[in-house]
Amino acid sequence: MAAQQETERGLMMIRNSWYMAALSSEIKAELFARTILNEKVVMYRTSGGKLTALEDRCPHRQVPLSKGRLQDDTIECWYHGMQFDASGKCIHIPSQKVIPERACVRTYPAAEKYGFVWLWMGDAERCDEALIPDHSVCSSAQYAGEMCYTHAHTDYRLAIDNLLDLSHIAYVHPETISSLAVAETSPEITVSDSEVRVRRVLRKEKNSPLLKQMMKLDIIDRVQEVIYWPIGNTRVETIAHAPDEPDGLALRLFTTSIFTPETVNSCHIWVGIHRDFALDNQALTQLILDQVKKTVLEDKDVTEHLQANWKTDAPIIHLAVDHAGHAARRMLTRLQQQEPEVRERGIVELM
Amino acid sequence: MAAQQETERGLMMIRNSWYMAALSSEIKAELFARTILNEKVVMYRTSGGKLTALEDRCPHRQVPLSKGRLQDDTIECWYHGMQFDASGKCIHIPSQKVIPERACVRTYPAAEKYGFVWLWMGDAERCDEALIPDHSVCSSAQYAGEMCYTHAHTDYRLAIDNLLDLSHIAYVHPETISSLAVAETSPEITVSDSEVRVRRVLRKEKNSPLLKQMMKLDIIDRVQEVIYWPIGNTRVETIAHAPDEPDGLALRLFTTSIFTPETVNSCHIWVGIHRDFALDNQALTQLILDQVKKTVLEDKDVTEHLQANWKTDAPIIHLAVDHAGHAARRMLTRLQQQEPEVRERGIVELM
Amino acid sequence: MAAQQETERGLMMIRNSWYMAALSSEIKAELFARTILNEKVVMYRTSGGKLTALEDRCPHRQVPLSKGRLQDDTIECWYHGMQFDASGKCIHIPSQKVIPERACVRTYPAAEKYGFVWLWMGDAERCDEALIPDHSVCSSAQYAGEMCYTHAHTDYRLAIDNLLDLSHIAYVHPETISSLAVAETSPEITVSDSEVRVRRVLRKEKNSPLLKQMMKLDIIDRVQEVIYWPIGNTRVETIAHAPDEPDGLALRLFTTSIFTPETVNSCHIWVGIHRDFALDNQALTQLILDQVKKTVLEDKDVTEHLQANWKTDAPIIHLAVDHAGHAARRMLTRLQQQEPEVRERGIVELM
Repeated sequence: MAAQQETERGLMMIRNSWYMAALSSEIKAELFARTILNEKVVMYRTSGGKLTALEDRCPHRQVPLSKGRLQDDTIECWYHGMQFDASGKCIHIPSQKVIPERACVRTYPAAEKYGFVWLWMGDAERCDEALIPDHSVCSSAQYAGEMCYTHAHTDYRLAIDNLLDLSHIAYVHPETISSLAVAETSPEITVSDSEVRVRRVLRKEKNSPLLKQMMKLDIIDRVQEVIYWPIGNTRVETIAHAPDEPDGLALRLFTTSIFTPETVNSCHIWVGIHRDFALDNQALTQLILDQVKKTVLEDKDVTEHLQANWKTDAPIIHLAVDHAGHAARRMLTRLQQQEPEVRERGIVELM
Repeated sequence: MAAQQETERGLMMIRNSWYMAALSSEIKAELFARTILNEKVVMYRTSGGKLTALEDRCPHRQVPLSKGRLQDDTIECWYHGMQFDASGKCIHIPSQKVIPERACVRTYPAAEKYGFVWLWMGDAERCDEALIPDHSVCSSAQYAGEMCYTHAHTDYRLAIDNLLDLSHIAYVHPETISSLAVAETSPEITVSDSEVRVRRVLRKEKNSPLLKQMMKLDIIDRVQEVIYWPIGNTRVETIAHAPDEPDGLALRLFTTSIFTPETVNSCHIWVGIHRDFALDNQALTQLILDQVKKTVLEDKDVTEHLQANWKTDAPIIHLAVDHAGHAARRMLTRLQQQEPEVRERGIVELM
Repeated sequence: MAAQQETERGLMMIRNSWYMAALSSEIKAELFARTILNEKVVMYRTSGGKLTALEDRCPHRQVPLSKGRLQDDTIECWYHGMQFDASGKCIHIPSQKVIPERACVRTYPAAEKYGFVWLWMGDAERCDEALIPDHSVCSSAQYAGEMCYTHAHTDYRLAIDNLLDLSHIAYVHPETISSLAVAETSPEITVSDSEVRVRRVLRKEKNSPLLKQMMKLDIIDRVQEVIYWPIGNTRVETIAHAPDEPDGLALRLFTTSIFTPETVNSCHIWVGIHRDFALDNQALTQLILDQVKKTVLEDKDVTEHLQANWKTDAPIIHLAVDHAGHAARRMLTRLQQQEPEVRERGIVELM
């Protein structure tokens, strides 16, 4: 892909939004570097526990601040010892007394919610914590479960497409969440201004390896609903029970997958399954987590191959099941078109 | 090299021709992926033994079909389970009943001849098996020998140049086919519309390490002829005997080297030596094959270094011995100019 | 970075100058390849000990001559056995008797001075050995010390900036030459047409780990002066003694660092410290050399990170201490503007 196109696609990233940047547990009183939307960010927690996110680049010679030293909530640059406080302000230059006004580092509004760290990558004045999507399932005491992190060399939109078309699970995930019934059952797709829902009602379905380990049933009834909110938030809600016992004890599972662009061709992925039963069963949490990790690596594998094999001028067919993914793309395109830089430059969608 | 130039060079590939794509023995009832002329191809053999070659890209989401599953002569896509038969037609979509007419994969005309798999990469209507060059030496019961495969990061034309100027063998292949006499003997070069021939008659030549192992002679008489047919077919015919015994028992060797472009900067190479004596001597076949492999890796080494060291604006001198290579290039340029896409766009030779 | 810009920056290299290409001890009666200013060079010493530097590219098929064979002061090409003498003249072509006049390889004027090999990369007529900068400290019998070689993926100008702003040593080199006093003492910067000097007078300074090993003093007085001459020559002169004993025994150290561009984004670095005491103490020479190597790898690390993290449109602030580096850049820009190719094409500074 030409550098020009890469740049345009970089510009087209939707900056005015919250992005998950880390698990809360990843950020300690240490410098932690991660690239989000093509921007290098260094994060840390102050001694008071406050989250801090700065551009990972010294304004003097551009070396990564994350290679420096954190002391008293202040980063000392690796190269010439300039010190920056948690507000990004330079408070010490070893070689001179006067600190230029411009000697400061961009900060990113940061929030901590549901056990996740969120960064607002756009105009700080438009930032509002109420806009963080509801992932309370992941932090509520009513549910148990754990998230894991994966990096993928794939446009985050391919990862969203993957989630919105679960007809792939029988083929890509034979040993974990496989279900041929999902592939063969037409979903009900609902699109609103702010979300996409893909719902399947499955009767007398052959159980997946993962659910079978919990339910000890070969055949089940299940309602499965995928929900998507921009930019990269998804949840799969599963209600399963013994067949023909609609009022019997149902097992509820919530699979949360969150995708954050790293660059135009790579993304960060966090996935976890939360359940409403056996909350104290650590062994079950671990068993589920192991299966999630296996499943995520299989998704990574297929979407990375897809991206590497992509040929812009190859003929493409669309299936009925792609309808949900297309709706999500249109939602993203609308949001992109509202970005000031995209509006001003009149950039049009490239992919 | 600029992406633009890469693309033009890709366009300039000669598509309307047969290309060797594999040894027959490489293609079994399994999916086998290989890139030919910048196109990703998946090959397999049906249960009836018929060769099949399809574009290695699902028309739905572009993942490589070679990562899917072959069952009943049909490929099931890795991602969403779409099934394609050996004619490239989609015969099953798990998530919907109606199969769109456009849901099919490009097939390549494939032929099997001389123990090799040949693909026609251009307009299927112009495909004619009679156009496959004669490599009957490689499959005839009169001769014994084996081919081996090598990949090289080099424009296939550099590999052809290498074959057409054997004055390099004393320097590049000291332990196998080395002969200083070849470098120092002016060849007779004959160019017709369809082939280039480079013939050397060598008298009282110091024998090469390889031939000496067969002939047990230090000094020999030899006639060596290199023949080239487009696109990438060559044979070196060797007739050697004890010096001054023109009517004595002569040893005949045929070295077949076939080059197929993978991309504009890389190629597939198959080489083997066939002999008309000691046909049942498996140990001799293996000894020759080992020497061939060593020789081919040396050729790969020198042509890859050549390509990596190439500087478009460096002054170049041509030697008399380059005449054959230049004739081959002109032949390729004429064929390129006949390609519809090259004709239409008025592209001119870049290298 | 766009290929176009790479090319322009390559053109902008200052060719009409001497460049250090190797330590004298690196060049023996063997072929030695090194890229200098984007040009591939092969060097060797003739049987008479004379230095030879040729373009590392056969004028026939462009393979690297350094992969060939050196025999009787003559290179035999790896590919077709053409032979080139130390003047770059072709003296033998195995496949033909007539040697074309153009069959020659570019030679580079080479000189050996101060134990270093110097190449003149520009117009041979402008070459003058008197223009080699004075590094007699490195070869004089009055001093002892050794140089070491490092390669860095960094624009050589970043390495010069690094040397001209030693306020970094407390942060980047805590275990060797660290001194907080250097960072905190304003230097006296003197710029002439031909050199830049950065001088610091340090009183009652906490001694660096390296100097402490030699002086056994925790606190010292020191005068430190960095001198820069284009293109890539620097020396740090250190005079240190016990505090408040200006007339007492002073220790003198000369740190020579020489930077030669390999490509626009990488450079060769030679560094060594020479002393005027304990000349025969080999153990001390080794101790200093080990510390130099550690220090140079730390500089390589920080400048490579700087280059990788560089964003052309990021806001940058300049400190007082950058004045010396900026003066060196202006000096280089003036020299670039005098290069014939830059003058003719009207290229302007890109970085």
